[in-house]
Amino acid sequence: MSAIPPPVEWCGDSVRILDQRALPHREEFLDCRTVEDLADAIRSLAVRGAPVIGIAAAFGIALVAARSRARGTNALFRELARAGDALVATRPTAVNLRWAVARMLTAAREECCRVGGTLLRVHEALVAEALRIQAEDREACAVMGRLGAELVPERANILTHCNTGRLCTAGIGTALGVVTTAHERGAGVHVWVDETRPVLQGARLTAWELSRLGVPMTLVADDAAASLMAAGRVDLVLVGADRIARNGDVANKVGTYGLAVLARHHRVPFYVVAPTSTVDLDTPSGRQIQIEERDPQELTRPLGLQVAPEGVRALNPAFDITPAELVTAIVTERGILRPPFTSALARAVSGASGRGRAGGGPLGSLGRGREP
Amino acid sequence: MSAIPPPVEWCGDSVRILDQRALPHREEFLDCRTVEDLADAIRSLAVRGAPVIGIAAAFGIALVAARSRARGTNALFRELARAGDALVATRPTAVNLRWAVARMLTAAREECCRVGGTLLRVHEALVAEALRIQAEDREACAVMGRLGAELVPERANILTHCNTGRLCTAGIGTALGVVTTAHERGAGVHVWVDETRPVLQGARLTAWELSRLGVPMTLVADDAAASLMAAGRVDLVLVGADRIARNGDVANKVGTYGLAVLARHHRVPFYVVAPTSTVDLDTPSGRQIQIEERDPQELTRPLGLQVAPEGVRALNPAFDITPAELVTAIVTERGILRPPFTSALARAVSGASGRGRAGGGPLGSLGRGREP
Repeated sequence: MSAIPPPVEWCGDSVRILDQRALPHREEFLDCRTVEDLADAIRSLAVRGAPVIGIAAAFGIALVAARSRARGTNALFRELARAGDALVATRPTAVNLRWAVARMLTAAREECCRVGGTLLRVHEALVAEALRIQAEDREACAVMGRLGAELVPERANILTHCNTGRLCTAGIGTALGVVTTAHERGAGVHVWVDETRPVLQGARLTAWELSRLGVPMTLVADDAAASLMAAGRVDLVLVGADRIARNGDVANKVGTYGLAVLARHHRVPFYVVAPTSTVDLDTPSGRQIQIEERDPQELTRPLGLQVAPEGVRALNPAFDITPAELVTAIVTERGILRPPFTSALARAVSGASGRGRAGGGPLGSLGRGREP
Repeated sequence: MSAIPPPVEWCGDSVRILDQRALPHREEFLDCRTVEDLADAIRSLAVRGAPVIGIAAAFGIALVAARSRARGTNALFRELARAGDALVATRPTAVNLRWAVARMLTAAREECCRVGGTLLRVHEALVAEALRIQAEDREACAVMGRLGAELVPERANILTHCNTGRLCTAGIGTALGVVTTAHERGAGVHVWVDETRPVLQGARLTAWELSRLGVPMTLVADDAAASLMAAGRVDLVLVGADRIARNGDVANKVGTYGLAVLARHHRVPFYVVAPTSTVDLDTPSGRQIQIEERDPQELTRPLGLQVAPEGVRALNPAFDITPAELVTAIVTERGILRPPFTSALARAVSGASGRGRAGGGPLGSLGRGREP
């Protein structure tokens, strides 16, 4: 059983990214020396998954400070804010990106406002904050794994979608962290891995992680989930989230909403596993969440091979919205939240913001070039 | 706009098959000279789709008679029955295969029993019967198209799954025949084409047919259907069938059942379009229908490229069962059937068998080498 390399690592003056596009066949790494390198890595899905793209963005902000030629802390802050805007724009749906950038800018502002603040001190503060975000995510995964494993019956058949494991967090993962924790406790679980079209994160990444960790699994087409449920072969569904709105609506990989409807129809519990950094209290409901539309070629030319006739129109939403009423519970590092989610989420997030450096402020406050 | 070549053609002493594996990029043909060639073409999906594999099998039986070295009609009948068994075994779910073979053997038996029957006369009778099956299917498609088009509102957005058009029938298709009839009547329809993993019949075949016919369409991942419905962007679902049980349960391409659950959840009508040759009154319900499991490499190595880690387990059911209670109506060439389906299907099939040469007798009567 080989180890799974960390998806993002801070290397002092660059960020090492495990290039997930080459998985499961090759372990290749990108050495990102500038924030533009990092933005490209996020946009191209070399690094993907809500929690870890937040962490990558945080390191990206730290890189800006390292490379800056600003003549003072005010100019530096403007530069950081512009970089934050660019990072947030790479992928619109996952809120962790925005959340991490907001935390970094809050840390920067504090240091920039200090009497006698220097570029070096700002840089050091940013590196420390990014590493703190990473460490908190690792710890959150461990806690979610322990809490969520309580929901997993002995010998359960778990259906999961997309990749929510070590590759998309700084720790053991969100939904997949729950799976592996249950497995390590000897629960004797078996996982149905949705291949997760169009980018095939299930077939490529989740199958790879579970194989390396020795967790029994079977790959299935997304289309097979319904008949597995009808046959009583799914005991619970575990998914991650890219953003959770104030009312508990969940944005996640396209196909998640369909699974939630199917789970309800078959009376199968449907659990979302996500750290509070994924909760966005500024978004009232799923209706306000922007769904990223990706290149139609992901459908017309899968794996780089032309499949559809040339010139065919395709629509490629990367995410969908699962309404809160279809969610059985949300597992966070602050506890297992049950409906009504609005109050439960508010309590969980306020608990979290008393611990970290900053809450996820509104994006409106970012990147306007305000002086600190 | 180029024409769509017929998927199966009788060429006197061979059967020409449009090799659908090469579509949409190349129009290649297989010249099947023996029933083994034809069985290979069916098994490998060079020709696929319930109605047309029935037609192909009928021509396969005719080829056996053409090539036979039997010394009498009794021996010939045994040979035909063995070939029928082999053809039926190629794909277990679609009942049209079994139905067509049963019709061919009934025709052969009639001729073999005739005083002074000759191999030549049996052969002629079989060719005539196969061409009749083909012609009836063509006509059934036209009727289903006309009837079904009445169900399609003006400017409707129609979601369809797999390929159910000219490539899988002798005519304009089943569900896709309804779509194109509505289009030709100026209904201004638009089609959401599910790509239909794992074999991508939607992306490769349906997109190709609709493009050639000038029907407005958009390719989507199967995973996107749910959010399209939630957004009110689907007015009806139209699918075909591989077998319809006596109670109205429908076996069709994997993913169909999930769409039916989603359609019910979103109050979208869910129509099945299939000729009565697809109805199997000998199968009481979907529980008795054998679901074909195909090579896991369709999942692990899509398009011939290794995607999943080597050695990963995969489960690849090619079909699923939609229970009758999720079906709004079944469009057949004998009329639009509404629930309760048990009585409606029985009436439709008995009407059909008064017209053709034989009803779809039980498979148990085939291939036992009984003397005529």
